[in-house]
Amino acid sequence: MHKYLTEFIGTFFLSLTAILATTGNYSAMAPLAVGAILIGLTGIGWEISGAHYNPVVSLALLIRGKMERTDFLYYILAQVFGAILAGTIAVFLTESSLSSIPEIDPRQNALLPAIIAEFLGTFAWTMVVVHAVLNKSNATRSSIMLGMVVLALGIAFRDMSGAIFNPAVAVAYMIAGMAFWNDLLLYLIGPMLGAGAAASVFYLMDKAREEEI
Amino acid sequence: MHKYLTEFIGTFFLSLTAILATTGNYSAMAPLAVGAILIGLTGIGWEISGAHYNPVVSLALLIRGKMERTDFLYYILAQVFGAILAGTIAVFLTESSLSSIPEIDPRQNALLPAIIAEFLGTFAWTMVVVHAVLNKSNATRSSIMLGMVVLALGIAFRDMSGAIFNPAVAVAYMIAGMAFWNDLLLYLIGPMLGAGAAASVFYLMDKAREEEI
Amino acid sequence: MHKYLTEFIGTFFLSLTAILATTGNYSAMAPLAVGAILIGLTGIGWEISGAHYNPVVSLALLIRGKMERTDFLYYILAQVFGAILAGTIAVFLTESSLSSIPEIDPRQNALLPAIIAEFLGTFAWTMVVVHAVLNKSNATRSSIMLGMVVLALGIAFRDMSGAIFNPAVAVAYMIAGMAFWNDLLLYLIGPMLGAGAAASVFYLMDKAREEEI
Amino acid sequence: MHKYLTEFIGTFFLSLTAILATTGNYSAMAPLAVGAILIGLTGIGWEISGAHYNPVVSLALLIRGKMERTDFLYYILAQVFGAILAGTIAVFLTESSLSSIPEIDPRQNALLPAIIAEFLGTFAWTMVVVHAVLNKSNATRSSIMLGMVVLALGIAFRDMSGAIFNPAVAVAYMIAGMAFWNDLLLYLIGPMLGAGAAASVFYLMDKAREEEI
Repeated sequence: MHKYLTEFIGTFFLSLTAILATTGNYSAMAPLAVGAILIGLTGIGWEISGAHYNPVVSLALLIRGKMERTDFLYYILAQVFGAILAGTIAVFLTESSLSSIPEIDPRQNALLPAIIAEFLGTFAWTMVVVHAVLNKSNATRSSIMLGMVVLALGIAFRDMSGAIFNPAVAVAYMIAGMAFWNDLLLYLIGPMLGAGAAASVFYLMDKAREEEI
Repeated sequence: MHKYLTEFIGTFFLSLTAILATTGNYSAMAPLAVGAILIGLTGIGWEISGAHYNPVVSLALLIRGKMERTDFLYYILAQVFGAILAGTIAVFLTESSLSSIPEIDPRQNALLPAIIAEFLGTFAWTMVVVHAVLNKSNATRSSIMLGMVVLALGIAFRDMSGAIFNPAVAVAYMIAGMAFWNDLLLYLIGPMLGAGAAASVFYLMDKAREEEI
Repeated sequence: MHKYLTEFIGTFFLSLTAILATTGNYSAMAPLAVGAILIGLTGIGWEISGAHYNPVVSLALLIRGKMERTDFLYYILAQVFGAILAGTIAVFLTESSLSSIPEIDPRQNALLPAIIAEFLGTFAWTMVVVHAVLNKSNATRSSIMLGMVVLALGIAFRDMSGAIFNPAVAVAYMIAGMAFWNDLLLYLIGPMLGAGAAASVFYLMDKAREEEI
Repeated sequence: MHKYLTEFIGTFFLSLTAILATTGNYSAMAPLAVGAILIGLTGIGWEISGAHYNPVVSLALLIRGKMERTDFLYYILAQVFGAILAGTIAVFLTESSLSSIPEIDPRQNALLPAIIAEFLGTFAWTMVVVHAVLNKSNATRSSIMLGMVVLALGIAFRDMSGAIFNPAVAVAYMIAGMAFWNDLLLYLIGPMLGAGAAASVFYLMDKAREEEI
């Protein structure tokens, strides 16, 4: 139970931070906020649930045999419920405060660059987590690496896809009216391919290293 | 004595940084300044006083049985005095330098979003500290986690409530003329509920984990 | 093989982040993105390939006898291919999203300041890596030190030379149309001198310290 | 010798970063650059010279009996020479690139707030270093704490005194034409009082703690 609660609370705060930081008056700082909250939340949840907070990270660890099937289902559920709650509260908070709500517009951005952006961002996110799990990194190291990568790619890919890299957070964005349900597939396929690729590539790298030792 | 002095100095620098960073010409960087000073001050005070610098964090640790009643009273006093001194010096410094003093205006922001913002921010702040205390995290890990969470939520909730998450700092804001004494209750109730909720939720999570082991 | 793959992936993400962060709407945050991605990538690659991601860092470690000649050649190749791929993808992504592509214009910037900037930036970058290798620092420490130095000097030297400090990334910039092939020598000579100087100076410092012990 | 070389190189890069980050087109990021370079430089020099890079930090450690008198003199010399070189190179670099050079104008800022700002900033800087030395903190922890505090107070006190907190860097600012030689006393007295106060206060705190143990 406590693992699922951790995933629920973590994905809730991650989604809420991503939305509110982007809608506020200081939206230039949004990637910093997302990277920072990931560092904090990963530090809290690392020893409890593994601190996924992202369905495709759970997927990659399922592929790598680092989590059980039943856990996988409950993790996804906890993450999606956390995101839905975050999206709902965000709607209420931003409506009251009259903040402008920026939309990630698919007409302005081409579809293929958006998929590439989501693919590469999730590839890197997953690679950090898989590396940390396979090497049994401690929570401080894992959380800093992850937060920094997501912060950096959040700045880099922001104009292409909104730099979400996370289907659960994407759902929260859609509830908050910042992304379009039409693009749901984009935010599913890009990340799923990215996570799968990272799990495979990094597994090869790590295996090769172990064989040498 | 030295514990109380640490809380006094820590809350003083935390409050002063929050006020001056918000009033200056670079107020977009204010959440970064607050998160950064928390990292530094937590690193200094962690082994001495536990580095609370926030009355509701002390309250949560009192609830969890992690601090004594007499200590609790002196901690609150030290924190409030530190904040009052910071507010007073900030008035003098900002008057002299002719900086504009932004006000967190309750007429512009709705009351309920402000309370929710303070509740969630303090919930996360307290959760990090309680987690660190219960798991006996080292100072480096604890301070980075805490600073990053407060930085992130400082960006996210800034437009709703000023993202203070700390009754002592709220008092300093009021002395500096940046928040209104009318809103004192808001900055007391939101954080107290948030800290209480975090202490309870995390206790359950941690207890469940220990039972499994 | 896995070492070269790590250098390839690392230099790819480093170059792509540097280009996209600079071309996007939030280019003020570009040095933060570069520093952050370096922290993450160094954390991933430290125990595998040493996490160079920069031909002149490999050069400095070759000079110091900390890497083999055959490895050196493959490292350079992997880095340059990673950069070429990043530059090519960046062209596609930025064309599609209609981002403006800022150019580092040699007519606007004088040549000598640009060489000095590249020299000093690479001097510091290499010094951090050589120090970490000679002292067998752990990955967390090494990656934070490196990322912070590159972030800081990225802000400081941005107006002089674009603050690239890395011939591979410079190639990616040129493919993306952000720097000019005419300036290739500048981005080779400055960094090579800087890396050589850092390897020498730090070797002396370290040697002197060891003798005292 | 190597200790003095470390102080020379460190103060050189610290001063150069502070000046160039402030004069560039992205001067809002200057406190971030200064905090970041301090983290990197402290990580490099911690085990070699103690990584002071600031005459009043050396003074505080002399007062606390943590450095020898002859070392103290050479440290100050190395720091001041590093700063002079940085100021000179900065003049050359900024003249060539036609950056605007902002001046910290004593007529715009009142004198007393500037002294208070320098006093408090140096108080905190010194407190972090003295704490780290007395507790034998490792380099990672020490450097992060120090960089974060200087980053935070750099944002907070920027409008009052330029947030220099370091007589050597102040000399570099004056050479670069960003501060006035008339204000040299301000940048000497504020920091010296701050460092002295921090050394005393923290000594008391630490002594009290040791007695309890």
